[in-house]
Amino acid sequence: MRETLQDIIQGIRRIDCDIQRKARDHSASLVMPFRALGRLHDIAEQVCAIQGTINPDVSSKAVVVFAADHGVVDEGVTAYPQRVSLEMVKCFLKGGAGINAICRQVGARVHVVDMGMAGDIEQELQKQYENLTIHKLGWGTNNLSRESAMTYEQAERSLLAGFDEARKLIQGGNNMLGTGDMGIGNTTPASAIGSVITNSSIKSMVGPGTGLNAQGIEKKIKAIDKGININQPQSSNGLDVLSKVGGFEIGGIAGFILGGGFYRVPVVIDGFISTAGALIAKSLSPGVVDYLFAGHCSKEPGHRIMLDHLGLCPLLDLGMRLGEGTGGALAMTVIESGVRVLQDVLTFEQASVSC
Amino acid sequence: MRETLQDIIQGIRRIDCDIQRKARDHSASLVMPFRALGRLHDIAEQVCAIQGTINPDVSSKAVVVFAADHGVVDEGVTAYPQRVSLEMVKCFLKGGAGINAICRQVGARVHVVDMGMAGDIEQELQKQYENLTIHKLGWGTNNLSRESAMTYEQAERSLLAGFDEARKLIQGGNNMLGTGDMGIGNTTPASAIGSVITNSSIKSMVGPGTGLNAQGIEKKIKAIDKGININQPQSSNGLDVLSKVGGFEIGGIAGFILGGGFYRVPVVIDGFISTAGALIAKSLSPGVVDYLFAGHCSKEPGHRIMLDHLGLCPLLDLGMRLGEGTGGALAMTVIESGVRVLQDVLTFEQASVSC
Repeated sequence: MRETLQDIIQGIRRIDCDIQRKARDHSASLVMPFRALGRLHDIAEQVCAIQGTINPDVSSKAVVVFAADHGVVDEGVTAYPQRVSLEMVKCFLKGGAGINAICRQVGARVHVVDMGMAGDIEQELQKQYENLTIHKLGWGTNNLSRESAMTYEQAERSLLAGFDEARKLIQGGNNMLGTGDMGIGNTTPASAIGSVITNSSIKSMVGPGTGLNAQGIEKKIKAIDKGININQPQSSNGLDVLSKVGGFEIGGIAGFILGGGFYRVPVVIDGFISTAGALIAKSLSPGVVDYLFAGHCSKEPGHRIMLDHLGLCPLLDLGMRLGEGTGGALAMTVIESGVRVLQDVLTFEQASVSC
Repeated sequence: MRETLQDIIQGIRRIDCDIQRKARDHSASLVMPFRALGRLHDIAEQVCAIQGTINPDVSSKAVVVFAADHGVVDEGVTAYPQRVSLEMVKCFLKGGAGINAICRQVGARVHVVDMGMAGDIEQELQKQYENLTIHKLGWGTNNLSRESAMTYEQAERSLLAGFDEARKLIQGGNNMLGTGDMGIGNTTPASAIGSVITNSSIKSMVGPGTGLNAQGIEKKIKAIDKGININQPQSSNGLDVLSKVGGFEIGGIAGFILGGGFYRVPVVIDGFISTAGALIAKSLSPGVVDYLFAGHCSKEPGHRIMLDHLGLCPLLDLGMRLGEGTGGALAMTVIESGVRVLQDVLTFEQASVSC
């Protein structure tokens, strides 16, 4: 049976507060001053509530990089040519990019989904890599500053494709997921989504992305402004926002996040693009944020506004702005450490320590 | 041959700026926007400069918990009884404490040094654990609010003991070290050191430690105030400050840090107590800070002031305040990730990506 988007949205329940309370009691008995490990305790207890057990497991980790291209690059909003999306995806498959290095460090698998890049991965390569999925919704979106980035049907399919990817990985045994992105030009749709959903000025949402100068930033602001004026996205309707000013990979990320909520698996979101996906997911199903951890705070200026809207406090703040899932992947170690503390540390009684 | 303290201080050279520049050039060629991984690049390049190679290695990691007791507990400055120091050390040896859980997560070994706890570890236990060193300088320090915490000779021996511990671990193949502490009452000497060396008010340095109430904090401020008035530590003389208002484990940490500088190995300092040790080390040999990474920012309020004095920006900020080395240990993953990015990520050319 295939779930419809409505099934998915209705299938996301709140996390288990009873379990969270039990986990909190256990934290209080650990051989250390009360809550001395700060957010590590909060994290572990949230994972318990997500997985519905005081013996959670987040040791099987996968990061999915959703890749797509963007018609809006025609407006001169990027520092790199569009073909770089495909070139970088091949680099992910070869294991040579930033996300591969960090995932190797934290022990996470890297998966890649072509949600709609302008170029195609050669057939031989497609066969060679088991960690690659082709969910092609087009060869790049339309130029959002002139028309709707995609149809409603494409938007819905992008969500379902992301959901399927989560389902597949969870059924394959993964118990913590991370989101990543690749798509030249994708800070433009992400900024547009951020501006519309958080009701913030475009200017507050727009930054240099991969390295735009002041002139480029001006063009980006103008492109988004035009796009919002022409398309009139309805800020309370995630599907509408996604279709009008979004991107295929952002839809994939949003659906993937919904998958985490549906199957009760924690999802670590990465930076600016992933968080735009989370805004779409929250708009569709507000409770899904309880399943999320914000891996880090990106250097992209609008990111903090988005995180505030989601009510998420980032775990790391290291001036990163690469995307690919790197910040989320690195933060997985923090989450795993929190869970390990809850499970491995003796109680005062077990350790025979006076309290 | 045994180095004297003077030999050690003079043996700490500046890190290698030529190598750092070469590493920076290499970072710029990696297949990502310029410095898109923020501090991960800075970290990796600093490690290169420390180890004197563009192929650094920080994968063999050890955290040393220096343990001691403090006469100043007589002033009612602690929330836990003094015997907890020894009880916790036994818990470290059994592998059941916070530091053990986090070191397991990041792949670091835990070592313990009894620098002068009030109680003794039983002979059988001493034989059982290879990761335990006894460097006993006394059964707790004197009460610093009434007299000098220790003699000059004890202070010097504590530094040399910490140095020896670093030497032993480095000669055993460890290439990244972390500092940790255990000692009921040790936020009091640490605050005193912080106040004297950074020339900050006692009040700005004093916090709840393991969980003091307002009354306890008042007592702590009074004890430190009395101690500084009676002992008159010379703020520019680390050995004098350590002997008058310090602690055996803080001396051990300071010497351990000097060992990292002497042998050109990065040292990750943990929270409030470890940073007090770093203040002593810097006072003795200012260049040693180039070998240091600040693992995290503790919740203890004076910590940020200490870090600013050292010119260090913490890698993590998770509301932790346990000590034991936990924040430093967790940050080791960030450092290792930075190094891995520098070494594993392909260049634009190698990856055939347009730039």
